[in-house]
Amino acid sequence: MAKNEGFVNEIADIESDFPRWYTDVVVRTKLADYGPVKGTMVIRPYGYAIWENIQRELDARFKAAGVENAYFPLLIPMSFMTKEAEHVEGFAPEVAVVTHAGGAKLEEPLVVRPTSETVIGHMFGKWVESWRDLPLRQNQWCNVMRWEKTTRPFLRTSEFLWQEGHSVYATGEEAEAETLAMLALYAEFAKNVLCMPVLTGRKTEKEKFAGAVATYGMEAMMHDGKSLQSGTTHYMGQNFAKAFGVQFTDKDGALKYGYTMSYGVSTRLIGALIMTHGDARGLVLPPPVAPVQVVIVPIAMKKEGVLEAVGALAERLKKAGIKVKVDDTDNSPGWKFNEWEMKGVPLRIELGPRDIEAGKLTFFRRDTCEKGEMGSENCEEAVKELLGAISVNLYEKAKKRMEERIVNAQTLDELLAGVDGGNFVRAGWCGERACEDKVKDFAQATARVMDEKNDMPVCVCCGKKAKRTVFFARAY
Amino acid sequence: MAKNEGFVNEIADIESDFPRWYTDVVVRTKLADYGPVKGTMVIRPYGYAIWENIQRELDARFKAAGVENAYFPLLIPMSFMTKEAEHVEGFAPEVAVVTHAGGAKLEEPLVVRPTSETVIGHMFGKWVESWRDLPLRQNQWCNVMRWEKTTRPFLRTSEFLWQEGHSVYATGEEAEAETLAMLALYAEFAKNVLCMPVLTGRKTEKEKFAGAVATYGMEAMMHDGKSLQSGTTHYMGQNFAKAFGVQFTDKDGALKYGYTMSYGVSTRLIGALIMTHGDARGLVLPPPVAPVQVVIVPIAMKKEGVLEAVGALAERLKKAGIKVKVDDTDNSPGWKFNEWEMKGVPLRIELGPRDIEAGKLTFFRRDTCEKGEMGSENCEEAVKELLGAISVNLYEKAKKRMEERIVNAQTLDELLAGVDGGNFVRAGWCGERACEDKVKDFAQATARVMDEKNDMPVCVCCGKKAKRTVFFARAY
Repeated sequence: MAKNEGFVNEIADIESDFPRWYTDVVVRTKLADYGPVKGTMVIRPYGYAIWENIQRELDARFKAAGVENAYFPLLIPMSFMTKEAEHVEGFAPEVAVVTHAGGAKLEEPLVVRPTSETVIGHMFGKWVESWRDLPLRQNQWCNVMRWEKTTRPFLRTSEFLWQEGHSVYATGEEAEAETLAMLALYAEFAKNVLCMPVLTGRKTEKEKFAGAVATYGMEAMMHDGKSLQSGTTHYMGQNFAKAFGVQFTDKDGALKYGYTMSYGVSTRLIGALIMTHGDARGLVLPPPVAPVQVVIVPIAMKKEGVLEAVGALAERLKKAGIKVKVDDTDNSPGWKFNEWEMKGVPLRIELGPRDIEAGKLTFFRRDTCEKGEMGSENCEEAVKELLGAISVNLYEKAKKRMEERIVNAQTLDELLAGVDGGNFVRAGWCGERACEDKVKDFAQATARVMDEKNDMPVCVCCGKKAKRTVFFARAY
Repeated sequence: MAKNEGFVNEIADIESDFPRWYTDVVVRTKLADYGPVKGTMVIRPYGYAIWENIQRELDARFKAAGVENAYFPLLIPMSFMTKEAEHVEGFAPEVAVVTHAGGAKLEEPLVVRPTSETVIGHMFGKWVESWRDLPLRQNQWCNVMRWEKTTRPFLRTSEFLWQEGHSVYATGEEAEAETLAMLALYAEFAKNVLCMPVLTGRKTEKEKFAGAVATYGMEAMMHDGKSLQSGTTHYMGQNFAKAFGVQFTDKDGALKYGYTMSYGVSTRLIGALIMTHGDARGLVLPPPVAPVQVVIVPIAMKKEGVLEAVGALAERLKKAGIKVKVDDTDNSPGWKFNEWEMKGVPLRIELGPRDIEAGKLTFFRRDTCEKGEMGSENCEEAVKELLGAISVNLYEKAKKRMEERIVNAQTLDELLAGVDGGNFVRAGWCGERACEDKVKDFAQATARVMDEKNDMPVCVCCGKKAKRTVFFARAY
């Protein structure tokens, strides 16, 4: 037995020490480990398999929407970063810089991409000539690097994996429509694949992407009531098109700048999953992204016929397209139950001599922690239905929880009480940066997104007429 | 029409200027473009789609073999590189180095991974405790960077995409067996997916991976008779296990070092495809990796019913799992024929009023450049069979060509004449580095792999008794 296995259930209490619970779960279920360089992580096979499932689902959606994948260089000339004034201001403090290569000092330092608007803008500027070339819509799956002071696996690491989609359109209307369409795509994906409800909406000027005209975000409520920004889409107007010369000859013969937008989600989504669905026993993985959807634990497995029956059942479920694993290790059934519950496998099936004789299966739903029975004959459909029911239940449970934890505030004290209680707080806002800053100072809460509804009449901070109703929350 | 399109057929002559033909094809079929930093490339959607097909096919093979995917950090502490003496000697001259990050100078410079033996060795050292943890077999799909002086898209660029698999075993026998098994997996993949025959075998000491005990390679013959190293597998013995403390407690209770091996292929395979199958008209893509397997060109497409019939045919082929594209742009059929031939689409179908009336399809095979006809009813199976026949023909043609161009040499002059004639040259070798170096000086040819057969009696260079029979060739 490996050294760590004895500690398998030593996860901190989820209610009293959620941050510790999180890192315990990440490390002990082998989702990730710490890399040798401070702030880096290694995504281990169990975590990477979740990422592969996320990629497969999202990539199919992008392709169905007509987006093509490509790959742009990791290293970006420092001079590119400075071409868009807000962009360099936002990203310069956190870039990693290559100064030497091939045994010599480089003439110009190169930045390890923190995001690729600049280099993709440069290439789009080379490729786009005519209105016939538009829209140009490309996406890349890659690593990016942002040097962060405080890091945590999946949530904030110096290097992370993500996708970044970039499009150029002939008109601002089209580019803005795509910015909203991709936000909707993300929210649909969050609901149906991650079983995670999200708030979507426009970000304030303070919270927007460096260089964007408008940023839209999706925010999810974590177990502790804090918000996790889980995806963003950005409308750039002509900012990057002008900086990188993305020009086209329009139908009227005039040379015009294009309008660009971008959108991205990252391995942070794995952190979102953990903190949305996890419970005292550990991970609870939604069936659509679980590396193992069904684990079969043989009972009295030395008895004649048990392992054969387990193997036959596993084969049937595999053929039905279910991701199944048989745990036939020497550990006790009780140990295995704990292990796979901690690892968040949606459904456990126990199969022993009595079940085989009775032609039934005992199952355990990880979402409700309840046991049940089903007939073993033709159980494929029943198992699929159960997995579907688990997905629906995870989503509904999280949605109900989030909705119950959205409260309105008229004053800063109410706002503070709201976020202290682990809520998202809706409040009026006058639109001034000073008030946004004051909320941050007073309640350590930030404007997550602006609501589409605009029903809070006065600013929670200054009491003047509110321009927008905003969701404030503490955030990761 | 975009600026470049008028030049679509201006590809250099394949026979008289193969290097220029290569870059023309890469750029004009939009497989790749040059990045802003010298030596970097952008993989454009048409090229990236080939890489996705390569990934899908290889990844399925790795998973079927029991290998798990993971992700390790991009940046490696400089001190890691120096832990394995040969390794640092081999890679130090070509690494890119991050010296600054987050606005400050780093205490220790970080190397952008040129390969990940060191950081993976470090993590394996953390994870492996007992013989029960072995074998540990992980793979990652990622970018790597090697600062090269002379670069060409896909063949040699400072950054490239690849997979690198790394395994630890309890015994050297197992690790060596895996080294050969992965070489066989690569060769099977090259044959059945890339339709590319390869020579496989052990590399000489001079040509082996920095830090390996033994390197095995697969070499493919390009159109000009030069060799392209298309994949390598490395048996490391205990070199990296000792450098990074990969130790386990064996069944007998003793603490032992593991035996490691690694294996990788890269986006270089796209270059291999281009130069193995391409011809005077441009690309010739093997059906298993072609982004578009069948292009349908409507003839007289303004005539009633033509586009409808084309659309219906495309739907049927899509449903049958064939990657199909309809070119209904305003260009002439002749222009479209040239365009898609240059882009290497394996099969073209032409459909016009007369074909529709006669219930037939006209097709054009890119591999043979011959036209044919088939009935349009239930043509899905016939199209699939044709694609299969194209794959077989591409492989057989390349194999015949390679076999005809393997010649034996007894002397350096014969060897030189052989490589001058665009051949792989089999020759005896005494095993001395000096003779290998002399062959390089004399004929600009290197030892690609050692033959399993050992039938050449004397060294082609010094005339002493040969230890091995070696395939010499000029190489990319």
